Amino acid sequence: MPTTGSPDGSHVYDELREQVLVANRRVVELGLAVLTFGNASAADRGAGLVAIKPSGVLLDELHPDSIPVVDLETGAAVAGDLRPSSDTPTHLRLYRALDVGAIVHTHSPFATAWAQAQRELPCLGTTHADHFRGPVPITRLLSADEIAGDYEDATGVAIVETLASRGLDASTMPAVLVASHGPFVWGRDADEAVANALALETVATSAYRTLALEAALESIQPELLARHFDRKHGPTAYYGQSA
Amino acid sequence: MPTTGSPDGSHVYDELREQVLVANRRVVELGLAVLTFGNASAADRGAGLVAIKPSGVLLDELHPDSIPVVDLETGAAVAGDLRPSSDTPTHLRLYRALDVGAIVHTHSPFATAWAQAQRELPCLGTTHADHFRGPVPITRLLSADEIAGDYEDATGVAIVETLASRGLDASTMPAVLVASHGPFVWGRDADEAVANALALETVATSAYRTLALEAALESIQPELLARHFDRKHGPTAYYGQSA
Amino acid sequence: MPTTGSPDGSHVYDELREQVLVANRRVVELGLAVLTFGNASAADRGAGLVAIKPSGVLLDELHPDSIPVVDLETGAAVAGDLRPSSDTPTHLRLYRALDVGAIVHTHSPFATAWAQAQRELPCLGTTHADHFRGPVPITRLLSADEIAGDYEDATGVAIVETLASRGLDASTMPAVLVASHGPFVWGRDADEAVANALALETVATSAYRTLALEAALESIQPELLARHFDRKHGPTAYYGQSA
Amino acid sequence: MPTTGSPDGSHVYDELREQVLVANRRVVELGLAVLTFGNASAADRGAGLVAIKPSGVLLDELHPDSIPVVDLETGAAVAGDLRPSSDTPTHLRLYRALDVGAIVHTHSPFATAWAQAQRELPCLGTTHADHFRGPVPITRLLSADEIAGDYEDATGVAIVETLASRGLDASTMPAVLVASHGPFVWGRDADEAVANALALETVATSAYRTLALEAALESIQPELLARHFDRKHGPTAYYGQSA
Repeated sequence: MPTTGSPDGSHVYDELREQVLVANRRVVELGLAVLTFGNASAADRGAGLVAIKPSGVLLDELHPDSIPVVDLETGAAVAGDLRPSSDTPTHLRLYRALDVGAIVHTHSPFATAWAQAQRELPCLGTTHADHFRGPVPITRLLSADEIAGDYEDATGVAIVETLASRGLDASTMPAVLVASHGPFVWGRDADEAVANALALETVATSAYRTLALEAALESIQPELLARHFDRKHGPTAYYGQSA
Repeated sequence: MPTTGSPDGSHVYDELREQVLVANRRVVELGLAVLTFGNASAADRGAGLVAIKPSGVLLDELHPDSIPVVDLETGAAVAGDLRPSSDTPTHLRLYRALDVGAIVHTHSPFATAWAQAQRELPCLGTTHADHFRGPVPITRLLSADEIAGDYEDATGVAIVETLASRGLDASTMPAVLVASHGPFVWGRDADEAVANALALETVATSAYRTLALEAALESIQPELLARHFDRKHGPTAYYGQSA
Repeated sequence: MPTTGSPDGSHVYDELREQVLVANRRVVELGLAVLTFGNASAADRGAGLVAIKPSGVLLDELHPDSIPVVDLETGAAVAGDLRPSSDTPTHLRLYRALDVGAIVHTHSPFATAWAQAQRELPCLGTTHADHFRGPVPITRLLSADEIAGDYEDATGVAIVETLASRGLDASTMPAVLVASHGPFVWGRDADEAVANALALETVATSAYRTLALEAALESIQPELLARHFDRKHGPTAYYGQSA
Repeated sequence: MPTTGSPDGSHVYDELREQVLVANRRVVELGLAVLTFGNASAADRGAGLVAIKPSGVLLDELHPDSIPVVDLETGAAVAGDLRPSSDTPTHLRLYRALDVGAIVHTHSPFATAWAQAQRELPCLGTTHADHFRGPVPITRLLSADEIAGDYEDATGVAIVETLASRGLDASTMPAVLVASHGPFVWGRDADEAVANALALETVATSAYRTLALEAALESIQPELLARHFDRKHGPTAYYGQSA
């Protein structure tokens, strides 16, 4: 139920849909996905709604009214004539389990290579540490039953499990690599989710090349990882203009 | 003989040529070919005609009337002053053997590397499975006699053989890599053929990098391959807006 | 204390800030950094001032008045409402130790890979020799105490040490790679510093690929290195229009 | 002495300079060189003149009158206030030894990697065979005396020697890689030289990646090499519109 905006909730939808449309366009402009690969969504927690890219539609053809809005809990269609992304159940599973405001699923080239290689992305530099507090984890493979059943929901479950089993928090680890598939990335809002997706691709690229130069590297110093993450995030942050 | 359009068939040619011109331009814009490398064609099966890029001409200089139209069966010139692509016999051989509406031959960087390496492109991720139902196969090398003889036709024959010998259908395997050469890709129409060529380059890129990270990988799980292909294609598809 | 410009020094700031804003924009346009990664600064030695990018701000939002100006010796804020880059202490340490007019810190993809691999960048071609008189050195890792303490200043100290311990001069070696982090690059002015950062990325890229083709290479001939550097720099230079 | 154009030869210079300016701009636009790296020239054999890029000048600042014109035999300045490229003696040596109309020296990323690796570029695909009739050869290293002496002329001598010692003709092998340096490429005119430089970078890229996938490859079939080269070049050519 919308808690802000006009009586019929349409202004809530407008803002949310606009945010999602912009995020989906940014994903393509930044080279994080081609064709109709990839999708971005954002949640209005007060209203219990999620806006998400429609399935298999080129972004040039879209305006905010084309963006489907669904119920965060049930996935039921709330607004929009187009079918939502086939990955919608994955997004909804994540919104229900994690305290995040927006989710981006890309097929960005280097992050996808790590996901396909079924390897976690090690933290090999300070750019990584600026965004991700440790290695970006990789999910287990899904079972044949999970793939044959409610596959997209099972993907979301695997992501949540991956964070939980490593004691990770969505706010300090804003991405997981889905094995044989690609990255899911999130943030407090769509801008942050897209920025994190770009940061992920950037560090996935440099880690790939770093290991080509020095195969035995495992991680930067733990102190350096902590220093860089904490100077940008959390109570002791001194990066940026807000603190 | 044209079966639709104006009495003299000129409107049939216009639409077909326009489609082919746009496809050839997209191939260059998407970085799938440089200079005059690569070529796209489309068929009007009712009319028994194929429109194809002229040979060795930069696309900036072209308008639809520049696009040669040839007879699908005989290759005889039907319209246009320019000589058709030297690869026209390859295209015609494919139109006669396969149920496809358009063909794109690119020199896209990573797909060409796989073709030159004489290796089939393994299916290492869901993006691959979304477009190609299994590894993209590679042709055998041509014999010295085939190269010295009707070389471009022999290339088409080798592509058709490659599909047949593996029991593959053009609709579920819309590309073949020609050994020492590069990819031929197709679709129901020019838009789909170009999209498949872009998808091929995308997955050729990520497969290259995936193996650099994990050399022993052979394939994603067969269940995952089937699930992803089938959610986009065929009777049980639930991706996109059309089903 | 400003030695040129209007009585209140504002014109000195304008020119310096404009130079710094342009340099920061060039860094992004040239692909040497994404998001808010990277930062450029320039010094007015007569005035004892340094202008530097504000921390964590997207460049689209900036105009020259947004550029912070700080005291070269103390780091105290002299002008501007925004907080200067968190890397400011590194820049100031370099200005105090080295005779340079501008400094650029990028996260350019290949130079960062070398820095993360903790390897110096060998001189494998004449393009390298045109800009850097020998291998671009890499710093030692910082100690846990240095990381926990005045970390950004310690980074600058490590850069200065790296040059000194190898007997290098900032004018013939206009870059150092900071281990696990990325490159710091300089020049007589902001234009030259940006050009050197682009040259560094270019040669870091070709060195990476050169070693992939021929892993055992160590250096070009010392005579060739000297010839190329000296034809562009120093008393016997005959490259360019100025000599 | 000019043999065509207006009495004072100025129209000969205009056309030649314009051609050279366009070629130098294309080299940068195509990503074959950054900053002031790389240079293009063209000869008017009737007039015994060569126009070439000025040394160390950014192309944005140039108009045709800025392009230096020198005597093909002596290198003496004929027109223009700017100093010609420091590589001018290399170009002149090539014009005197080879029947070519234009020369392009780039630092294109992958061709430079092969040159720095001191490896000839093998012919691993038909795109290579379309442009270069066999492996693109690499020069020997220059001696310390050659480097200390008339270095740029010695570079030209080494290129000519490399062709001669392999029995190669400039018309069927329009490029040589200079060891530890980069490619020199030519053609009948500036357009063809630039196109060959782009083709070289394209095939240097795919050869690099082909060997990463299949290290033992040495060459495509000799019949295939001959077929592709000859279908585009020489008396039996059937590619393009001109034959």
